[in-house]
Amino acid sequence: MRTFIIDTPLDMHIHLRDEDMLKLVAPLSAKTFCGGIIMPNLVPPVTSKEAVVAYKQRIIDAIGDEKFEPYMTLFFQKYSKEFLKDVKDDILALKLYPAGITTNSEGGVSVIDSIELKETIEAMIELDIPLCIHGETNGFVMDREKEFMPIYESLAKDFPKLKIIMEHITTKDAVDLLDKYDNIYASITLQHLLITLDDVAGGMLKPHLFCKPIAKRYEDRDALVKVALEGHPKVMFGSDSAPHPKHAKEACGCAAGVFTAPIALQVLVDLFDKNGKLDNLSAFVSQNALKIYNITPPKKEIVLIEKEFKVPSSYSSETQNVVPMYSDEVLNWSIQE
Amino acid sequence: MRTFIIDTPLDMHIHLRDEDMLKLVAPLSAKTFCGGIIMPNLVPPVTSKEAVVAYKQRIIDAIGDEKFEPYMTLFFQKYSKEFLKDVKDDILALKLYPAGITTNSEGGVSVIDSIELKETIEAMIELDIPLCIHGETNGFVMDREKEFMPIYESLAKDFPKLKIIMEHITTKDAVDLLDKYDNIYASITLQHLLITLDDVAGGMLKPHLFCKPIAKRYEDRDALVKVALEGHPKVMFGSDSAPHPKHAKEACGCAAGVFTAPIALQVLVDLFDKNGKLDNLSAFVSQNALKIYNITPPKKEIVLIEKEFKVPSSYSSETQNVVPMYSDEVLNWSIQE
Repeated sequence: MRTFIIDTPLDMHIHLRDEDMLKLVAPLSAKTFCGGIIMPNLVPPVTSKEAVVAYKQRIIDAIGDEKFEPYMTLFFQKYSKEFLKDVKDDILALKLYPAGITTNSEGGVSVIDSIELKETIEAMIELDIPLCIHGETNGFVMDREKEFMPIYESLAKDFPKLKIIMEHITTKDAVDLLDKYDNIYASITLQHLLITLDDVAGGMLKPHLFCKPIAKRYEDRDALVKVALEGHPKVMFGSDSAPHPKHAKEACGCAAGVFTAPIALQVLVDLFDKNGKLDNLSAFVSQNALKIYNITPPKKEIVLIEKEFKVPSSYSSETQNVVPMYSDEVLNWSIQE
Repeated sequence: MRTFIIDTPLDMHIHLRDEDMLKLVAPLSAKTFCGGIIMPNLVPPVTSKEAVVAYKQRIIDAIGDEKFEPYMTLFFQKYSKEFLKDVKDDILALKLYPAGITTNSEGGVSVIDSIELKETIEAMIELDIPLCIHGETNGFVMDREKEFMPIYESLAKDFPKLKIIMEHITTKDAVDLLDKYDNIYASITLQHLLITLDDVAGGMLKPHLFCKPIAKRYEDRDALVKVALEGHPKVMFGSDSAPHPKHAKEACGCAAGVFTAPIALQVLVDLFDKNGKLDNLSAFVSQNALKIYNITPPKKEIVLIEKEFKVPSSYSSETQNVVPMYSDEVLNWSIQE
């Protein structure tokens, strides 16, 4: 039976939520990853040093004994240099949400403009804090990311020393930007390497594959797969694993987010293996992120075995119940226990 | 209080289903329409004279005392001239489904080709039977209708005497075809005059607005609204009202179809009124269809009043429960009881 070892796997975009949901999902990420960037879109969002520190402690408590470094983020607002200096050691990045664009983003930025955000961004540059961005406008759902490209370009040009990470990119347009600006990077989710809008709404409607940004066209998916498989140095894995309770996903107005944390490595190994690119998986899921963020997470080796794994129908606790991507389906690779 | 009378309203594309669902929904269509074209995609599909006659009788039984003419259709297959001659007086049209393209269409046509279908189509022309088509390929969900346009064009050119109705059109591409070929007509649903993909998947995911063809872009909706409002003589109202049980719409893999029959006239009056085009509503919802199909349905006048109507959460019977479009919302116009 073939095995494959992933050294220091990182998930550079995760939603761990809070309270009972945090307790259910944090151990699932910690089991197979050695660290990850934790999104700050709680209710209310994480906007103070106290909130960062307290949330980090709740994550550590939820994880228990596993070695896992929660890299914390602040919800982007206008912050002073003094404030950022004080919080710098507790965070890895700021995360910018356009107002109202996704789950719990109501307090996000209304006008993303270099002049408007100058003071905060210049402080970030001085303190070497990267800016992670959910890059969507409020336009037509299939055009939102493409329409955001000029905003990425303005920021990249106006602040050449700012490290900009285009989060969970879904389009060829975003991929094309990577080689155009030195200071633009990207994270890519699991689902956007696998699905298109056809999987969400082409046959039956599939709420568990509904996320923001929505999955796009085949040519977009192909462009994402290409840079992931080649281990493009500016591209990192970030699952955007986003648990919602089963009842909220299967309701009349279903919330956006795909829960992939517990199946991500198994599926990635299979994808890279089938394309003959296993050698590049480490770049995508670890090495690139280590360099881009200059981090040294706790050591962890995950052993994957080419052995069938039946994905559970759901992961649940006494109060929570979350359906993962590929629920009840059989994957080709498992995690060695 | 303003009133508006609609004379002889017709719904030129309805799914009445069968058994308990038929008993629930048929009276709702019959209440506000004087007739409609009944889709043949039952399980198994309606492909024989006996099936047509028996299904029509079940519809009449379900309707009870209301005056309503169910215009029956045959599920398109290769039929002989003798067969069609024998069934002609019991049907108004044949309905062609590409195989597997929507609910209960597995037995549809795999290759839509003029040579392949020549014998059947020439018999239809001789007997003056129109051909209604669900015009979608099995391509990317947003492109399926656009990709079907060359097939419409081939049929229109190869059979200039065949009356072709593009059913439930959703794109500007289809609208553009109307003025290009004398023998091409179209039906338009309620929802495609109102929503875009943004309404289905731009905010939360909305299963009750999910249908096939899926709602498209703003420019597509605008093109549909334009020809409907102007009462374009080749365009007819066909709700494609497609009830599914509530549990099937709110499940993990939600079925396609929007249930609009009981609210259609109320919403159409409002749409035409707000655009100052009330004078053209009769063309869209009655006169055009009378001419295109050369039919004389039972007389019926429906009086609409500009008075608020709260749409029920669902329409139900002992065994069935269907959620209509705009459930629990308030419309500006009501049907006079």
